[in-house]
Parts: sequence; C-alpha cells; structure tokens
Amino acid sequence: MQIAVLLFDRLTALDAVGPYEVLAHLPRAQVVFTAERRGPVRTEVGSLALTADATLAEVTRPDVVVVPGGPGQRAHMHDSPILDWLRAVDATSTWTTSVCTGSLLLAAAGLLTGRRATTHWLAHDQLAPLGVVPVTERVVTDGKYVTAAGVSAGLDMAFTLAGRIAGDTVTQAIQLAHEYDPQPPYQAGSPDKAPREVLAAVRSRKEFILRGP
Amino acid sequence: MQIAVLLFDRLTALDAVGPYEVLAHLPRAQVVFTAERRGPVRTEVGSLALTADATLAEVTRPDVVVVPGGPGQRAHMHDSPILDWLRAVDATSTWTTSVCTGSLLLAAAGLLTGRRATTHWLAHDQLAPLGVVPVTERVVTDGKYVTAAGVSAGLDMAFTLAGRIAGDTVTQAIQLAHEYDPQPPYQAGSPDKAPREVLAAVRSRKEFILRGP
Repeated sequence: MQIAVLLFDRLTALDAVGPYEVLAHLPRAQVVFTAERRGPVRTEVGSLALTADATLAEVTRPDVVVVPGGPGQRAHMHDSPILDWLRAVDATSTWTTSVCTGSLLLAAAGLLTGRRATTHWLAHDQLAPLGVVPVTERVVTDGKYVTAAGVSAGLDMAFTLAGRIAGDTVTQAIQLAHEYDPQPPYQAGSPDKAPREVLAAVRSRKEFILRGP
Repeated sequence: MQIAVLLFDRLTALDAVGPYEVLAHLPRAQVVFTAERRGPVRTEVGSLALTADATLAEVTRPDVVVVPGGPGQRAHMHDSPILDWLRAVDATSTWTTSVCTGSLLLAAAGLLTGRRATTHWLAHDQLAPLGVVPVTERVVTDGKYVTAAGVSAGLDMAFTLAGRIAGDTVTQAIQLAHEYDPQPPYQAGSPDKAPREVLAAVRSRKEFILRGP
C-alpha cells in the first residue's frame, strides 16, 4: 500500500507529519513524500524543511493520497502541476484525503464537486464557491474522500482512515503506541469554544494565517 | 527567543514537529533544527527526512531546548556529543523540554537527577534507574524542565509551555489557529483506556516500538 504525501513550499508541517506518523504504521504501508522537485521543501514558518524523495512524475499510482494545507496552497489553485497530478492519481487511488486548506486544492482539481468536505474554519467560506458542500465537522468522509479541518485535525483524520483501512484493533494499537490521549491545557481549539477575544484576535489575522507573512 | 529542536537519526517525527508547530508561532520565536551534522535527518520509519539547518556547535545559547524521542535515542545514551550539547545548552536555557523518550536523553545527561519527569509509557521503567522520579502524567513540569509522555503528548507539552512563556491569550490564539480541538475516533490512547487485547498486543511489541526495526 503506497501512501503519497504531497509537499509544496510553505505547507504547514503538522498537516503532513500528523497523518504520516499514523499511516506509516499501517501494515504493509510505504509512505513517499512527493513534490514538484526532489529535495528539501520549506514549510510555512521557514525554519523546517521536509524532504521530498520523489517527484510527482515518479508517483503515479499511490493507494492513498494525503494533501496538506498551509499558506503555500494558494499558489497552486490554477493550472498547476499539482492539480494535474491530483487528477491523475485520484483516478486510481483508493483514498484521497486532505488536511486543513489541502481540501481547497482537491476542490480546485475538481475532485470534490458536489461532495461534502471540510477545511480550516477560517477558510470554510471558500468551499462553496469551489462547488463543494461545506460541512462543519472535524473529519468528513464522502465516498473515498476524507477531509480534515485545520492542522491538528489531520491526526483525527488519519486515525479515522486507519480504522477504515486496517480495522479497529490495529488502529487502536497505533493510537496507544503514539499515546494519542490528548489533554489540551486550554479549551480554545474551535471557534465555538474559544473565548470571544481570542476568536476576534484570530479572525483579525485571517489573511496572515491563511496566506502567511 | 531561540528555540532549538534537536534532531538525530531515527527520531520520531511527530515528537519534533508537534512542538515546533506550536512554539514557532510564539511572538519573537525563532526555531532552529539542530543535529550533529547539517542536512537531512531520517526519522523513525525512514520515509521522512527533516532538515537540520545548524550543527550542535552552532547552537550555543538557545532559550528553549526541545528534545524528541524515538528509536534512535538509544544510540546517544552514553558519552555522546548530544549529551555534551544538552549539558552545555542547559546551563543557560530558560526551558529544557522533551517529548517521549527524549527525557531519557535529558536524564542520561544528568539533568533530571532527583526531578519529576515522564516519558513514553512503555519506557517509564527506565526513568528511576537514571535517577529520575517517574510521574504518570501527560505533561510534567519540574522547575524549568517540562517533559511529555509519548509522541502526541508533545502537542500538549508545547501548549503548556506556550502558556508559561506567552500567557493564556496568545496560547489560546495559537490553539485556535491550529484548530487543536482533538476528537480521536478511538479511545485507546493510554494503557488504562485501551482494550485489554490492544494493550497486550502493544506490550508484546515493546522492544520493536522502542528500538525500531
């Protein structure tokens, strides 16, 4: 089972690494990080590079496709090699998935037309104009398409997907090995739970968060 | 504020990337990934490399030190350049932190002697022989030392630390921007919550999980 994780400049690192950390432990899984060019790909903040070991042209028939989001997503929304690749690999994938604003790339490739999907809460209003039925849930499954909300939701997406691929026992074992028993010290992780002033502060930085510095 | 994230061969990627994703968004934070040599460092499963942008010798006075764990940790427990570096930077750090079996490196460096700390639940029995007071909590703070339980606990550690460094409002804003509102599809993330057969299966693979293939 080949799992392809897409990389592009200024992706959000955790969008890619969260699902990787879970899915790489599935039985017979082989993960490949792929980008337009081989080599280091700088993530959002710039201080971390993830290595792409294969070009898009070298990854032609992955079973699972993982598309992260991040500020760099915007650069690939029109006539890009990434959209071409997504259409090509989706034709034979078993699962096509995204984290955060990665779903906007799937939508721009025309893969989510008429389907239910989610994205980062700050980008939710971008789904409908792309022909997607927006859903406010942390993980949304519609057929073979599994989309996650912002950044850290990729972990919940990956465990959901792992359950579908390998069953409950295997997935619970991966969860236990990763000690995924979250205990956030604050309860501000969604717009309906965050204090009003925190919500206002983040909303006021919407463009910065979605597009980056 | 310089935040140094230590890398070594066969670390667990999420141990490093989880805290990075949180701490990099603190005001005036500059993160540097550091290793014995510059360049790509292969993580546990082998299919992902993170880039070290600085050698240990180039990172002399970080304010915050983040030490991940993973199968590669064992190779550095005796007379290693990493232990020398940890002792040196700890002398001036404001916070010295770890995720998963990273705390065993801190302990081997002599930094946790007599202190309360935690680690991956499968490695908990290794703390006391290193002179540490083992604590079964997800995040343990003792003075300037903040240690986290296994892998995904690094996120909770980082949000705890962010709160101490930058206060509640800033930290909640980072949490909301990362949509860290975990909703695991399974409840098997700790030994006391996992089904008995899952716990037995993971225990039986203890050496494989801690040492790798």
